Amino acid sequence: MASHFLAKVYVTLKPTVNDPQGLTVRNGLHNLGFAEVGGVRVGKFLEVQLEAGDREEAARRVQEMGRQLLANPVIEQFRFDLEDVPPPTRPSP
Amino acid sequence: MASHFLAKVYVTLKPTVNDPQGLTVRNGLHNLGFAEVGGVRVGKFLEVQLEAGDREEAARRVQEMGRQLLANPVIEQFRFDLEDVPPPTRPSP
Repeated sequence: MASHFLAKVYVTLKPTVNDPQGLTVRNGLHNLGFAEVGGVRVGKFLEVQLEAGDREEAARRVQEMGRQLLANPVIEQFRFDLEDVPPPTRPSP
Repeated sequence: MASHFLAKVYVTLKPTVNDPQGLTVRNGLHNLGFAEVGGVRVGKFLEVQLEAGDREEAARRVQEMGRQLLANPVIEQFRFDLEDVPPPTRPSP
């Protein structure tokens, strides 16, 4: 029987890539009085629910999703954590 | 002397808010053959470097940044972790 997992995927720009969105957030924080803020980097955080036979299979599939769709390998990197989750509840018959 | 912290901020849509970007990612994954994917939710992941007198002050300030700028309180929620980081290296005199 398949198990249910929740993958928490963090997609970030590679360190050498400029981050204009991060600069905008930093400037916004400075303008609001948060002068103590240094750099800001902005990335994506995805929660992906999936079924897999076991944790190893789930990790392999999420790795593949990241490579193919979730991250742009030219400018981004990604990592993820896997959590076991109970299967969705179904209405009683 | 001020300490340096890295706040990792996770901004997510509230559970009741529709997530068209998440639906698009889910459909894209299905089209690529990842039929095992259930729901997908897309949020933001921000890394904010800041100085503060201590960890409590840093947490208080990041909470305030989230409330004022990083998250839209109408549709989003946020949480964060704080890491101690060494101060940036300065060139020798």
